[in-house]
Amino acid sequence: MSYSPPTQFTQANVTCKANVYFDGKVVSHSLVLADGSRKTLGLIFPGEFKFNTAAAERMEIIAGHCRVRLAGQGDWRDYPAGSSFEVSGNSSFEIAVDEGIAEYICSFL
Amino acid sequence: MSYSPPTQFTQANVTCKANVYFDGKVVSHSLVLADGSRKTLGLIFPGEFKFNTAAAERMEIIAGHCRVRLAGQGDWRDYPAGSSFEVSGNSSFEIAVDEGIAEYICSFL
Repeated sequence: MSYSPPTQFTQANVTCKANVYFDGKVVSHSLVLADGSRKTLGLIFPGEFKFNTAAAERMEIIAGHCRVRLAGQGDWRDYPAGSSFEVSGNSSFEIAVDEGIAEYICSFL
Repeated sequence: MSYSPPTQFTQANVTCKANVYFDGKVVSHSLVLADGSRKTLGLIFPGEFKFNTAAAERMEIIAGHCRVRLAGQGDWRDYPAGSSFEVSGNSSFEIAVDEGIAEYICSFL
């Protein structure tokens, strides 16, 4: 049975001010769930971006399409809506959107 | 004492999929609070946009700066961060951002 990401989070504390990266090419809103877990819901506009990680992260792509290259990984891999990838802590990843808008749920592990 | 908009909402149900308007020039995430009230947290990129309303809305600008012209109102008015305006139901408003990114909390009244 294929995995499908959540469509909503319940009982979350939501920060009103968005996180804005790369002059708005990547934007997100931060949530803290009732169990204390932290998430962001984000949008990535066309471009190529590099992010560093502190905690490990799971990125679930919920709309659109992107390419990802993890630190130390030679090739780019495609991640369409419905797919996900994990990034270890204290690492980095490159993420690129070629057209349209990709949307993601980021879970801090 | 001047009014300052909320910095977070607690115990909200948050829809993961963003609302995307005008090819991503306006994007938002939808929340339903514990009391059933509906909000969106949004970002407006440079441009001029027209929105229709079903329910009446209160728009609180929490970052950046925008100009607004309500339906039937001749002139544009400036709304910097910390200001707000209301739009009656079954009406419309034009909203414009000249530079940077404006962010808002929309409350459906």
